[in-house]
Amino acid sequence: MRKERLIIIGGVEAGLGAATQARRLNPDMEIIVFEKTEFISYGLCGMSYFIGGDIPDYNNLIIYKPSYFKNNRNIDVQIKKEVIDVNSKEKYVIVKDLENGGKEEKVEYDKLVIGTGARARKLNIEGSDLKNIFTFRDLKSAIEIKEVIKNEKPKNAVVIGSGFIGLTMVEAFVKNGIKTTLIEKEDHILPSFSNDMSNLVLKELKAHNVEILTGVSVDAFLGNEKVEKVSVNGKFIEADIVLISVGVIPNIEIAESAGCEILNINGIKVIRVNNKMQTSVPHIYAAGDCTHTFHYITGKEKYLPLATITDKQAQIAANNICGKSSIYKGTVGSYVERVFNLEIARTGLTEKELIENGFKYDEKVVKSRTRAGYYPGGDRITLKVFTECGSNRILGAELIGGEFVAKRIDILGLAIFNNMKLSDLYHIDFAYTPPVAPSRDILWIASVK
Amino acid sequence: MRKERLIIIGGVEAGLGAATQARRLNPDMEIIVFEKTEFISYGLCGMSYFIGGDIPDYNNLIIYKPSYFKNNRNIDVQIKKEVIDVNSKEKYVIVKDLENGGKEEKVEYDKLVIGTGARARKLNIEGSDLKNIFTFRDLKSAIEIKEVIKNEKPKNAVVIGSGFIGLTMVEAFVKNGIKTTLIEKEDHILPSFSNDMSNLVLKELKAHNVEILTGVSVDAFLGNEKVEKVSVNGKFIEADIVLISVGVIPNIEIAESAGCEILNINGIKVIRVNNKMQTSVPHIYAAGDCTHTFHYITGKEKYLPLATITDKQAQIAANNICGKSSIYKGTVGSYVERVFNLEIARTGLTEKELIENGFKYDEKVVKSRTRAGYYPGGDRITLKVFTECGSNRILGAELIGGEFVAKRIDILGLAIFNNMKLSDLYHIDFAYTPPVAPSRDILWIASVK
Repeated sequence: MRKERLIIIGGVEAGLGAATQARRLNPDMEIIVFEKTEFISYGLCGMSYFIGGDIPDYNNLIIYKPSYFKNNRNIDVQIKKEVIDVNSKEKYVIVKDLENGGKEEKVEYDKLVIGTGARARKLNIEGSDLKNIFTFRDLKSAIEIKEVIKNEKPKNAVVIGSGFIGLTMVEAFVKNGIKTTLIEKEDHILPSFSNDMSNLVLKELKAHNVEILTGVSVDAFLGNEKVEKVSVNGKFIEADIVLISVGVIPNIEIAESAGCEILNINGIKVIRVNNKMQTSVPHIYAAGDCTHTFHYITGKEKYLPLATITDKQAQIAANNICGKSSIYKGTVGSYVERVFNLEIARTGLTEKELIENGFKYDEKVVKSRTRAGYYPGGDRITLKVFTECGSNRILGAELIGGEFVAKRIDILGLAIFNNMKLSDLYHIDFAYTPPVAPSRDILWIASVK
Repeated sequence: MRKERLIIIGGVEAGLGAATQARRLNPDMEIIVFEKTEFISYGLCGMSYFIGGDIPDYNNLIIYKPSYFKNNRNIDVQIKKEVIDVNSKEKYVIVKDLENGGKEEKVEYDKLVIGTGARARKLNIEGSDLKNIFTFRDLKSAIEIKEVIKNEKPKNAVVIGSGFIGLTMVEAFVKNGIKTTLIEKEDHILPSFSNDMSNLVLKELKAHNVEILTGVSVDAFLGNEKVEKVSVNGKFIEADIVLISVGVIPNIEIAESAGCEILNINGIKVIRVNNKMQTSVPHIYAAGDCTHTFHYITGKEKYLPLATITDKQAQIAANNICGKSSIYKGTVGSYVERVFNLEIARTGLTEKELIENGFKYDEKVVKSRTRAGYYPGGDRITLKVFTECGSNRILGAELIGGEFVAKRIDILGLAIFNNMKLSDLYHIDFAYTPPVAPSRDILWIASVK
């Protein structure tokens, strides 16, 4: 009789996280990871810093190579192998070797983890297939963009979509000396933030000579083989390189073929899981950007493709596979990004979600400093916090400042996790010393005002 | 009939905090602040950075002058005025003018706030009255130390006591090019930290050529008018300047004279207050370093002279004076200091307090990084966390690292405030982006391991 076998589809964060945790808990199980690209185990969130030049070589982003998993963890990571079908009744997958003439192989599993992630959404408009139009979702695209910058020295870049990926790519282009235009179809950039808070980011972008167009949409790409112009509401913008960052599409096709239930969250289709990361099909689990999370405040399913969520989900899937009962409790939705000299973070519900969920809420804006006023250095920091009318419970927050933003948003996330009122923060100690923190932290000030 | 009158004794943080808050709540009340020194409203915690040179002028530390309070807040701040007696039956104070021939005046009050702070403890040994032996508790001493450094160019400094004030003064001397020796009578420096954690600080001090002597006591100071040598266990150490930082003595004398109940906490006498900051005598309140706090975990009175605690207590005293009922809930005891390139912080109970309070506890040490490993910059960070055996409740933590320590200790403080288990932190989101935070925060790692 063969050993118990765990098959994992996808060799980036979810897949390798699950594989590593399963091995930790079960030294005997056979573990095979199939990854269809040539890259595994890399820092997806670091790619724009490789393009921008902060990280000199993409190899720095690659954490482990397949041989590491083979030799050190007894995990069989196979690259350029695509799982093209799952038979969940007879419990096997069909794997296609993307080299060697596309040979197909049937491999049985006892447990299966789907960690297929998500792909970048493209724009289906005229000229979309011109060269130098990129999306940005895997290391291959990052390497290609870097090559174009190096070899063709583009003068003008257009970034479409002003979420966090769009903004960090704007910075990356600017750091390469490329004149950059940012295009957002909503009425302000960073649409998950409120208008006045996003204006702080707008100023920072303008200070770095970024052109910004909001409330407009892209009609077409023009060019001869390579992109040359972007048509925006009928006007032309010069562009030697274009980056499209208008959201992602979860890779659910293989889960669908296995019969897993699919959930539609505001038009985004994801693999439905329970709080043990089990899909609707026995023995099949899912984790990461191909599936959803649960929001602590609403209890509802939410799509939020974040590395921190993926990491936790992968561990929890592996725990349950290996008989260690483990519950995924969900997320308060904290995340952070740095764009030029600003750290931008949020937690809890967005204003749009507050409205959609029928909350009656107050908002409060506080401006302060990151360190003692009399100490050199330090920077401005601005908080917007949403609280429930009447109860004063914290429902969400946006925080933007020059430094020390990430851990402050974590404090607010923890407060939300504990159902705290904003006024409760008055009773908290905020550790103080002039060089690194002010005597009255912005979060404490918010609790009083 | 005269207006309702609030008298405040002490014009630094507690006194002016209470005065300002009272004025905010009550535009009519007469508010008089008596301060016996010439300095009011200054950043006590910034003094060592003035000596070290990070802050060029002590005037930068002075936040407001008496005229500001007079003109902008209608608060009568009188400097060089010492309250020498309180008659709590007839509700008046006797104020001595430290200029103008020591004229004494009787001033009636309706409410009284005692914000007299604490003075530095001295060593009663031979030679203690030699010149250039300093303690460090008010701006005057800081200015004098700076003058000595400037005019006499001392070559050798000795710092006695390795708490946070001692350590920041070691840094200040070193930054002035002075060869510095640190003396601690306990077996390791930073006695409120555990031995292995304090060793990280020891290494940092040694890297800056600081001599360190532990487990020794100072017998005498030697010199001719000025200090020249410090005798330590019979051996002589060269010293042109000495800083003694061996704790503080709360200034309770005026409260005692008013008949306020005094509390002895492990040999430190403080003014006893309730959770409205009322002393045992009607109409008399106390706040800041002359009084105590309450520890969230034990519920017991604790002496912890911290600016953040003072600030809150002063506000709460003023709230209650002005009829806005307000409860002081206590502290988890979070604080932070930066010494050279290390941020050093703690929260909750110290190991000593855990033992004294009969807790059965586990400890866990985690070492990690402050940012994504592949991103340039970032630094090491080490956590020791104490949890209750069985329940896994967080009882205390020590955190030392190159950056981003302060807000992480606040997260742990907030977790303690909410009675969280260490394992609960597993379910928290820690916002991640490579330039400012790692995908697995050290606090999250601690929850798993």
